[in-house]
Amino acid sequence: MKNTNLKLTTSDEAEALFYEAFRHCDKDVMAALWAEGDVVCVHPSSGAIVGHDAVVRSWVHIFTNATMPDIKITLAKKIVSGDLAVHLVTEEISTDGEFAVVLCTNIYQKYDNNWYMIEHHASVVPSRMQGHTLQ
Amino acid sequence: MKNTNLKLTTSDEAEALFYEAFRHCDKDVMAALWAEGDVVCVHPSSGAIVGHDAVVRSWVHIFTNATMPDIKITLAKKIVSGDLAVHLVTEEISTDGEFAVVLCTNIYQKYDNNWYMIEHHASVVPSRMQGHTLQ
Repeated sequence: MKNTNLKLTTSDEAEALFYEAFRHCDKDVMAALWAEGDVVCVHPSSGAIVGHDAVVRSWVHIFTNATMPDIKITLAKKIVSGDLAVHLVTEEISTDGEFAVVLCTNIYQKYDNNWYMIEHHASVVPSRMQGHTLQ
Repeated sequence: MKNTNLKLTTSDEAEALFYEAFRHCDKDVMAALWAEGDVVCVHPSSGAIVGHDAVVRSWVHIFTNATMPDIKITLAKKIVSGDLAVHLVTEEISTDGEFAVVLCTNIYQKYDNNWYMIEHHASVVPSRMQGHTLQ
């Protein structure tokens, strides 16, 4: 599926790498862990970005305009069946003096014994509702 | 898993019933098609609601405050593996003279040969970005 040396034997490993790439603004790692094909990324308050290259470009755009964020992750729920994994994650993101709580549905699929990201759907929790998140 | 007479032999059937319940503001159908346990619903611009009864109450609240909406659905992507199905859906919702485009990740799981909804993650597409949705 992908010509990389990544070894991601569980969806947990793929997710750990996703957040490592996010924290370090690392576009190469981000590019490597997304599957090819019609993958989908929905950034907060945004439309859907479809396709590996367009999704990676959107992350490069985010990385270009931000300092490295501090991100605290809480995995609220995980469901794995066959080659498909759904992770529901709460992100607490601090960057440039701003703070946001973001709910994410992260979806991973296994190809050739490696897990790749195929969807990231993120939405901001309004500050008045942050006491009602999953944490 | 559930003491109902529903026969939902595919995730497509479960999704069709979900939108029938949404369109007709039918809380009984909505209650029947959500799985028990720690299911999760993220309404647009909101936090996460966890648990069957809390999720159903949130839909009852929506139904109480709205007239029956007109909803056009476009299934952009579907992935099924084992007992787990992920549907990515664009909703075009018209109600009370208002119009919104909403991106949804709908997740279904099979229990006892029936498919139930276990997650609905919805986020509004800002009007300036509606040309960039999946449709």
